[in-house]
Amino acid sequence: MENKSPAFVLVRPQMGENIGAAARSMLNFDLDRMRVVAPRDGWPNERAVALASGAGRVLDAAQLTATTAEAVADCTMVFATTARDRDLTKPVYSPEGAMAEARDRIARGEKVAVLFGPERTGLENDDIVLANAIVTVPTNPAFPSLNLAQCVLLMGYEWRRALDAPAAMQMELAGTDWAAQAEMEALVAHYEERLEEAGFFFPEAKAPAMRRNLRNLWSRMPLTRADVQIFHGMMRQMVRWKERG
Amino acid sequence: MENKSPAFVLVRPQMGENIGAAARSMLNFDLDRMRVVAPRDGWPNERAVALASGAGRVLDAAQLTATTAEAVADCTMVFATTARDRDLTKPVYSPEGAMAEARDRIARGEKVAVLFGPERTGLENDDIVLANAIVTVPTNPAFPSLNLAQCVLLMGYEWRRALDAPAAMQMELAGTDWAAQAEMEALVAHYEERLEEAGFFFPEAKAPAMRRNLRNLWSRMPLTRADVQIFHGMMRQMVRWKERG
Repeated sequence: MENKSPAFVLVRPQMGENIGAAARSMLNFDLDRMRVVAPRDGWPNERAVALASGAGRVLDAAQLTATTAEAVADCTMVFATTARDRDLTKPVYSPEGAMAEARDRIARGEKVAVLFGPERTGLENDDIVLANAIVTVPTNPAFPSLNLAQCVLLMGYEWRRALDAPAAMQMELAGTDWAAQAEMEALVAHYEERLEEAGFFFPEAKAPAMRRNLRNLWSRMPLTRADVQIFHGMMRQMVRWKERG
Repeated sequence: MENKSPAFVLVRPQMGENIGAAARSMLNFDLDRMRVVAPRDGWPNERAVALASGAGRVLDAAQLTATTAEAVADCTMVFATTARDRDLTKPVYSPEGAMAEARDRIARGEKVAVLFGPERTGLENDDIVLANAIVTVPTNPAFPSLNLAQCVLLMGYEWRRALDAPAAMQMELAGTDWAAQAEMEALVAHYEERLEEAGFFFPEAKAPAMRRNLRNLWSRMPLTRADVQIFHGMMRQMVRWKERG
């Protein structure tokens, strides 16, 4: 599929109505790259099709995956729509800032995704740590909740607005390219595995938080493919060194 | 009522559901001055109240009038949300421009209203000529239609943005701070030393370039003090692991 706009990823959506409304909101702003992760009621979803009236082709072309990681495997920049979390060190964009960033990166050939959480609970921490940045809609703190389709609508609106404005920055990429999520995932797994073996995640009670923090750290690193190879190489060398005894 | 925000005027709204959803969208962005012109199903409207869940007070405080002219009688600036009409000579604002204008005028003590048309037909010419300007949401020409609550949501969002003018990106720094150069330098030295010992910089002829690339990689990483400690910890653990043999 042509890489001219961000993919909007609905993570574990519940109501078909909301999926259909999200498709309409996307098409209102000329977005047609939907991805759906583990929808509660299976796929295709009849209620979604009924409610998409006129935007059915967005659903027809939607890509279905079992996990969030698969849905963003080919992407080099992933935004998570969620309230800011004071416990995670992460860039926090406004919708306007995020879509301007998305526009600039897509213009440079990158692939960008935006994650939207399930209706009731929103994105989980395991989804959020996969994202490179957070997008927060500045709502009234006393009445903050937006539904899924409303959130999609606002991001789509800002995408459309961003297209009308000029780009701001370019990156010199000395003969390499940004690492895609799948490559980052392999790097994270490599380090986790070796560090596990080396007894890094200790004590046991703290291990999940340590893993989450480490994963979140990687998510913020703007690594090229060459960088990823350097990190792999460093770890491999440490292991060889150990094995030489 | 205090004149601190624009009045949102629903002109001849039809479905109670949409009135309730509009109330919620208003309160999402801290707007509470609703006016309702000749609602099809009378007033108060039970369906509206049911759908407003949590935003009922916006409906309770709404002002009911029989005509659009009465609803905007006290206002000095009236915007009509509608597609632009090539047959009317009129200022056409973007949602952003309109709400920035509204903010400036309200700050100077003026009263501002925004008109929203009935669901199916939109505002009629008789309503539009009462307005001083048009606001048009830049939707996909091939799929332009927004419903009433969506239109209210976007205008509310732009009102809130006009008040906040938030930075495009901020960083949530979960209880830590950016690493200073001296800390980065110590990290670079730690890795260089251990990797040297482990035989990473090989062959000799390539070692200077490898060192330079690694240093350049670190220079691009936006690391916090906590991140730096995690990297130190990983390397220390690999060394301990090796030393255990």
